[in-house]
Amino acid sequence: MERASVDHLAHERNKAQFDVEAMKIVWAGSKHAFDVSNRMARLVASDPVFDKGDRHLLGRKELFKEAMRKAAHGWRLINELRLSDEVASRFRSFIDEPSFIDAHWEMFVPTIKGQCNEEQKQKWLPLANKLQIIGCYAQTELGHGSNVRGLETTATFDPISDEFVINSPTLTSTKWWPGGLGKASTHAIVFARLKLGTQDHGVHGFIVQLRSLDDHVPLPGITIGDIGMKFGNGGYNAMDNGFLRLSQVTREGKFLESNVPRQLVYSAMIYVRQTIVSDASIALSRAACIATRYSAIRRQFGSHDGGLETQLIDYKTQQSRLFPLLASAYAFRFVGEWLKLLYTDLTRRILSNDFSTLPETHSCTAGLKSLTTSITAGAIDECRKLCGGHGYLCSSGLPQLFAAYVPACTYEGENYVMLVQVSREGRFSAGFWKTLHRNNSLYEASKTFDALYLQDWLKPCVSMEVFEARSMRMLIACAQNISKMPNQEEGFAELSSDLAEAATAHCQLIVVSKFIEKLRENIPGEGVKDQLEVLCNIYILSLIHKHKGDFLSTRCITPKQASLANDQLRRLYTQVSSSKRNHLVDAFNHTDHYLGSVLGRYDGNVYPKLYEEAWRDPLNDSVVPDGYTEYLRPMLKQQLHNARL
Amino acid sequence: MERASVDHLAHERNKAQFDVEAMKIVWAGSKHAFDVSNRMARLVASDPVFDKGDRHLLGRKELFKEAMRKAAHGWRLINELRLSDEVASRFRSFIDEPSFIDAHWEMFVPTIKGQCNEEQKQKWLPLANKLQIIGCYAQTELGHGSNVRGLETTATFDPISDEFVINSPTLTSTKWWPGGLGKASTHAIVFARLKLGTQDHGVHGFIVQLRSLDDHVPLPGITIGDIGMKFGNGGYNAMDNGFLRLSQVTREGKFLESNVPRQLVYSAMIYVRQTIVSDASIALSRAACIATRYSAIRRQFGSHDGGLETQLIDYKTQQSRLFPLLASAYAFRFVGEWLKLLYTDLTRRILSNDFSTLPETHSCTAGLKSLTTSITAGAIDECRKLCGGHGYLCSSGLPQLFAAYVPACTYEGENYVMLVQVSREGRFSAGFWKTLHRNNSLYEASKTFDALYLQDWLKPCVSMEVFEARSMRMLIACAQNISKMPNQEEGFAELSSDLAEAATAHCQLIVVSKFIEKLRENIPGEGVKDQLEVLCNIYILSLIHKHKGDFLSTRCITPKQASLANDQLRRLYTQVSSSKRNHLVDAFNHTDHYLGSVLGRYDGNVYPKLYEEAWRDPLNDSVVPDGYTEYLRPMLKQQLHNARL
Repeated sequence: MERASVDHLAHERNKAQFDVEAMKIVWAGSKHAFDVSNRMARLVASDPVFDKGDRHLLGRKELFKEAMRKAAHGWRLINELRLSDEVASRFRSFIDEPSFIDAHWEMFVPTIKGQCNEEQKQKWLPLANKLQIIGCYAQTELGHGSNVRGLETTATFDPISDEFVINSPTLTSTKWWPGGLGKASTHAIVFARLKLGTQDHGVHGFIVQLRSLDDHVPLPGITIGDIGMKFGNGGYNAMDNGFLRLSQVTREGKFLESNVPRQLVYSAMIYVRQTIVSDASIALSRAACIATRYSAIRRQFGSHDGGLETQLIDYKTQQSRLFPLLASAYAFRFVGEWLKLLYTDLTRRILSNDFSTLPETHSCTAGLKSLTTSITAGAIDECRKLCGGHGYLCSSGLPQLFAAYVPACTYEGENYVMLVQVSREGRFSAGFWKTLHRNNSLYEASKTFDALYLQDWLKPCVSMEVFEARSMRMLIACAQNISKMPNQEEGFAELSSDLAEAATAHCQLIVVSKFIEKLRENIPGEGVKDQLEVLCNIYILSLIHKHKGDFLSTRCITPKQASLANDQLRRLYTQVSSSKRNHLVDAFNHTDHYLGSVLGRYDGNVYPKLYEEAWRDPLNDSVVPDGYTEYLRPMLKQQLHNARL
Repeated sequence: MERASVDHLAHERNKAQFDVEAMKIVWAGSKHAFDVSNRMARLVASDPVFDKGDRHLLGRKELFKEAMRKAAHGWRLINELRLSDEVASRFRSFIDEPSFIDAHWEMFVPTIKGQCNEEQKQKWLPLANKLQIIGCYAQTELGHGSNVRGLETTATFDPISDEFVINSPTLTSTKWWPGGLGKASTHAIVFARLKLGTQDHGVHGFIVQLRSLDDHVPLPGITIGDIGMKFGNGGYNAMDNGFLRLSQVTREGKFLESNVPRQLVYSAMIYVRQTIVSDASIALSRAACIATRYSAIRRQFGSHDGGLETQLIDYKTQQSRLFPLLASAYAFRFVGEWLKLLYTDLTRRILSNDFSTLPETHSCTAGLKSLTTSITAGAIDECRKLCGGHGYLCSSGLPQLFAAYVPACTYEGENYVMLVQVSREGRFSAGFWKTLHRNNSLYEASKTFDALYLQDWLKPCVSMEVFEARSMRMLIACAQNISKMPNQEEGFAELSSDLAEAATAHCQLIVVSKFIEKLRENIPGEGVKDQLEVLCNIYILSLIHKHKGDFLSTRCITPKQASLANDQLRRLYTQVSSSKRNHLVDAFNHTDHYLGSVLGRYDGNVYPKLYEEAWRDPLNDSVVPDGYTEYLRPMLKQQLHNARL
């Protein structure tokens, strides 16, 4: 099914000069990870329940009903096949549709595991793990997002009855956005401001039962619903993001008790954000795969004798827009792997009460979450444009990818808020300001770098120094400007945009350094490491080109060096283009089902399938459209004055 | 209806320090243009047939049926009210839904007017003008877009029967994308390769009847349908973009006969593209209006004593992302006005057989079409992000605006293809290379500019010189690099990305110069000109910041000057923010109907209306969702093994 008999891209593939099977392992992270993903992707792809072909045609109710069906069918398979938690999670990811079941497994269960005390865990985990209850995470409110301290929902403790009264005192305190809240969840972890007598004890989490376990009807005092349609035809609309107004009593309470260290909350945040970085590389790889394959099929201009036109991918404009995105997918993959190790190390330390790496890990993860999701969201849209008009069709898969992806820029830490925070706290204060005193020559604006020849721009040590210097000098410039302000707080506020740019530079430095570190590993497979080196250099040089203003204004490079870097970048494009472009996206090992794109089909059989897809539109059910008699005919026949419109 | 009793933004509005009514006239272009738009916008807004509230909930068929209903109702009103062509066109624009009727009026009719000979006009124009036929413009094919010369559809002339046989010889020659083709059109202008005997006479236009005027059934030899769903919930899906396969005879044809000068084809292209530039400013103004109003309502962080949090619009990060977009809306408006004059002048000249300004007008319009649509598409998405999570809800209006807008980057000249063309032809070869020989000191890399103080960056003459020098020096750099290549053709191909960047710089120079020229006019109204000066400087300085790399690498400015420019930019943000921000968007005079956004409501009554909108989602029809019994209950009750999924 995945491999059709005619492969229109076979000619392209025969050109490959590296071991694509070995690259698949590198991309997946390990042989084990590859095997699991490969098996689960194909399990989902071969099951008709998980078909996605008609998603963009479904109305809201049908879409949600299908999501419930997929969740139930998936859960049955997970149990029948006795999939482990890790494997089940991979399995769910290939279903590729955001739904309440994700909110349950990715938000509700981890919060109980991470933030409840033992007694609470013993009560709730077995129920949640067997799906005897469905839960969600209700924090955001209609009037309050990023600033958790601004939440208005109240929890008033009644010492006599030993209960909490949870209340939505204002319209803006309505819980708003939680995934799974609207229709599916029976329970929620509700974040509310704890009041004891007249005292405000800050925001805490409470478990609240929302719906009867007998008939799913909301309990008394609870008003609950879906917040309405979101961006895109399918998009996130299979998810019942919900609202909730409360005037309800619960005996379950409160999280973040004294015996659960505050640091665990941060640790949970770090866990979620590092998975978002991993997911960014996957989403970006999907878009880049679609655009790369289609660019090898699509031809345009360049024929002077009526022969075949030139493949889009052979144009420098296409290459200069596409290949940096392809390189970024790999870059994000490797930095994501590193973040995962960083998180594993952190949890190990926390178990032995060592919180020393927490601030820096927190800051790193927040910054990289912001960087990778912003770039990925933009990249998906750019890949759509790289596919020309056909990228705008739902059958290209790109509208769905974009609409379902962009919330990642907002949830779990709004990207701009994150960047400003990163530059003010964490890494910058803890790590950077410390190294600043080491008086490294990189900080000195007079120090320049020795990229005199084209090939100097292929040396990792050169790139690393230039990126380090740029990041540090931008921050020094911020610090100097802040020092001119009446006070530091005002300075931070006034220069927040500059700080965000400095944070971006810092995060790019991290990504670059981790890509370079990856290349120092032993990487088996013929030509694989060479190919990764090319991608790494494309990533680096395309960043230098894109942020030339930063590098020049901090005097890290000269205009002449910038021009050399750009020349070298063009040469690298030629290297990718001439031999390996399709294998670089084949290495992602995406099934046609997962890609969900006619343009990105493995076999390149684009045009016949576009035509076939078109016929499936409901408008093509009849040759004369419904409404012709009422509206078109009277107009054409000049009889509108009598018509009932 | 438009002005609710409580105005949550009244406090903001009371701060205004300029004459907003006078600014409305400036924005509209003239008192007359303001009156027409104001009257038509309110006519549409008050008519329930044109309600857009449920658009994102409609399935494909219903959406198209509604589009037919709106077209018929609109046509009846246009006739009853005896609206002139100009006024009718404004009226249709406020219906704010792309549909077949636009393809008829904006593509089919102008092509007949501009490219038919007198005999053809006499036959077709009366039918088209009375809507006795509905037409579309069928050029693009499944396998062929930008390269018109690559079209595969054939028209073979049979001298015996004096007829053309129009044929789709391959799948990729299927006409694909034409708006209105799929379901509504009775006729099409089909572009095909003319064959006389064995000779190929290039691509020509032919009028082909597609459907019977009796029952709307496609004629024999014609296969026709809709190409399927496109990006977004409503988006462009009310439009029946269609496909067409032909094996059909027509006696009507061919256009571009010897008595219709080739230049008229270019003139038509210029006409369409200059309207696209105008439309860009409108689309951008809508997004900026929504984001500005919501940013004054939304509050976040900044409260230390439980009081009101800070308005989003008071944050420098918000300002630095939003205000340049607001300034761009004004900038595009003025350059659009200038293009319109340029086009009027061109048509006047063409009438007296003067084609001297054609190449430069063509190139200017192509470049500005590319620049303004690319920026606007990105800006709408940025405005969505500036509205945080709520911007992702359909009720914010931004998903619809984005999905319906982005095709402008692709149709009527794909934006990247345009940029590369601009840099190779037109203005650059005709205008630029000529001035190059004038040996202006601006071209000399040694010439620097005298912005030594903050206030120097408020001087138009300084900005103009800097933008001129940057544009010219970038092109010189391209020319020098091209001269090093084996031949010019290879050089153009290899450096096409650099050429596209140089073309962008050139187009920005045009926009900047037209904004500055506008400020030299007599502009009545208290404070209006001052305010436009602030916007002009924000536009200029934000471009310098964004493209700092260009300005620095061409040594037009020094790092120190770049830093001063950025300081000045921040000061300007403060000026806009402190007093005039809401009036600057009120000046667009958009009705709440046209904006279609809960977040952008004139009265700022955002939260209650979001809550109200949410309840209207079909998922909220019942408290227990459809599908609970089949899927959720068996899962919760551990009875999945028996369930039929």
